[in-house]
Amino acid sequence: MFRLLSAPTSKSVAVSCNFLVSRSFSSQKTTIGFIGLGNMGASMAKNLLKAGHNVTVFDVNPDPLHLLQKEGAVVAKTAAETGRNASCVITMLPNTPHVHDTILGSSGLLSIVAPGTVIIDSSTIDPNAVKQIHQECAKKKVFMVDAPVSGGVVGAANGTLTFMIGAAEGTEEFNKVSNFLQPMGKNFVPCGGIGLGQVAKLSNNLALAIQMIGVSEALNLGVKMGMDSKVLSKIFNTSTARSWSSEIYNPIPGVVPGVPSSRNYEGGFGTDLIAKDLSLALKVAESVKAPVPLGANAHQIYSLLSHQGFGKKDFSFVYEFLNKKN
Amino acid sequence: MFRLLSAPTSKSVAVSCNFLVSRSFSSQKTTIGFIGLGNMGASMAKNLLKAGHNVTVFDVNPDPLHLLQKEGAVVAKTAAETGRNASCVITMLPNTPHVHDTILGSSGLLSIVAPGTVIIDSSTIDPNAVKQIHQECAKKKVFMVDAPVSGGVVGAANGTLTFMIGAAEGTEEFNKVSNFLQPMGKNFVPCGGIGLGQVAKLSNNLALAIQMIGVSEALNLGVKMGMDSKVLSKIFNTSTARSWSSEIYNPIPGVVPGVPSSRNYEGGFGTDLIAKDLSLALKVAESVKAPVPLGANAHQIYSLLSHQGFGKKDFSFVYEFLNKKN
Repeated sequence: MFRLLSAPTSKSVAVSCNFLVSRSFSSQKTTIGFIGLGNMGASMAKNLLKAGHNVTVFDVNPDPLHLLQKEGAVVAKTAAETGRNASCVITMLPNTPHVHDTILGSSGLLSIVAPGTVIIDSSTIDPNAVKQIHQECAKKKVFMVDAPVSGGVVGAANGTLTFMIGAAEGTEEFNKVSNFLQPMGKNFVPCGGIGLGQVAKLSNNLALAIQMIGVSEALNLGVKMGMDSKVLSKIFNTSTARSWSSEIYNPIPGVVPGVPSSRNYEGGFGTDLIAKDLSLALKVAESVKAPVPLGANAHQIYSLLSHQGFGKKDFSFVYEFLNKKN
Repeated sequence: MFRLLSAPTSKSVAVSCNFLVSRSFSSQKTTIGFIGLGNMGASMAKNLLKAGHNVTVFDVNPDPLHLLQKEGAVVAKTAAETGRNASCVITMLPNTPHVHDTILGSSGLLSIVAPGTVIIDSSTIDPNAVKQIHQECAKKKVFMVDAPVSGGVVGAANGTLTFMIGAAEGTEEFNKVSNFLQPMGKNFVPCGGIGLGQVAKLSNNLALAIQMIGVSEALNLGVKMGMDSKVLSKIFNTSTARSWSSEIYNPIPGVVPGVPSSRNYEGGFGTDLIAKDLSLALKVAESVKAPVPLGANAHQIYSLLSHQGFGKKDFSFVYEFLNKKN
């Protein structure tokens, strides 16, 4: 049986060569609840079914419920009902209030699940809220942990997501949570303690958001001054401006084949979503008085894109926005 | 004899596998002038002497002149006098006005050098000024070209600099200029045409300046929320926030051994220097109406560091500035 431990602190994190834990886990047929069947959640629930688990699902939208039912899922009448007889419930919801209310609301998940249940939230939400929800759950001997993802809809469909888990490497919690997540992911990163999965994700996306705008500003400057976009990108990538945003996901159409910029900025990571992550990061930064001058500016830029109707375009669309006259 | 061609446009740049040209050149004993013997310039002039060239030097500061004289250089009485009987004159000066006045000023270099001379400016200056100086020189059949460097004082001392050359790959100009620069460098990057060496350097440093602040903001946020700095850096480096600033030159002391952040931010690339490059980049951006919202903000941040007395600290000191209370 799962033993509830106090949240490990970041001090206990050992950095080892097995940093990204990528391995096979023991496969047992388990009853798992899944709440939130959007683009990501529906694929994730399917992969749990494929692995042979009993999956009970819920969403406010009936369409994905019908599809999941055909795949073998049981449809619950409420979000909380997914937790009845479940060893684990996974939530994949839009933002902090949805997760908070689904778990802690009156007649929420916590009023139904049995002691010993694990609640894994794979949404991207406020890490301070995660700590609060975790504490409320702990009072009823329920272990709630954050495990936000990277890898997007493709990673969700293929079961190759990276989970950033709010637990320390080598702990019972980390191993148990990774085991539940195994059918949906490839990499399981121990971030050190409760809420730190969210901190890792928000910090990464804060740096990413700024870097993509920085690369876009600099490439646009060079191109407008007459440089060839491929030559300039190559200079960046062999020099000190090298970054994922310039090398792997270049924002200029045609420089890197197959990425969103090369298909009219369709698919990928929408500006609406990165604006949401930045909004969370700014809130968290304020809570610890961490100055984020470029982060605040980046949030305004993506919000402007979203406001102008480009919320579904990939976030690398910021290059096009800087480059094109209307 | 060197034949003067019109400046090639960026359209003629072919991206080949030999993008970074790194090879041996024919070695002929030549008379070369060198103006500007600062930390970089003095080492560069020494490497020309080591290669067997006759080198005539000038600087407003007498100290490096004495040192270079001991190494075998001839000391000129004025900057312009370095160009007498020289096949090539190299300038390594603080900023645009110094280069402009040294070459085009009354009794400047252009009044002394013979037709067919090559003037290579390795300073970092305004690319629009480079085009203007190039045109004035061309009227007297003197070929003036930009070839700013990366690699810092270590690269200058070891003769392993990268030169970003304002000429197109495979052209006579590119080959001739690379040949003169060979004793001082390892990589010779053809940037496509006059001024584009400067454009490449300023664009790269604009992206770099923004990325370093972005990485610093994001790491600081995570660390203040309780994450281990090495764990968080490793997450960045295996994910979408990966960049030279996080992976090679991490701004948190102790994460990457040997870089400036791990030796109290001494050495490296000073905030004064990156603030100067950003100032140039903003001026160039305005000339082509390229919006640089984060670049403008980054310039303010490095200017603030400089104003507060940290101008000689490495630019990764921005992490410390965001992290520490006074």
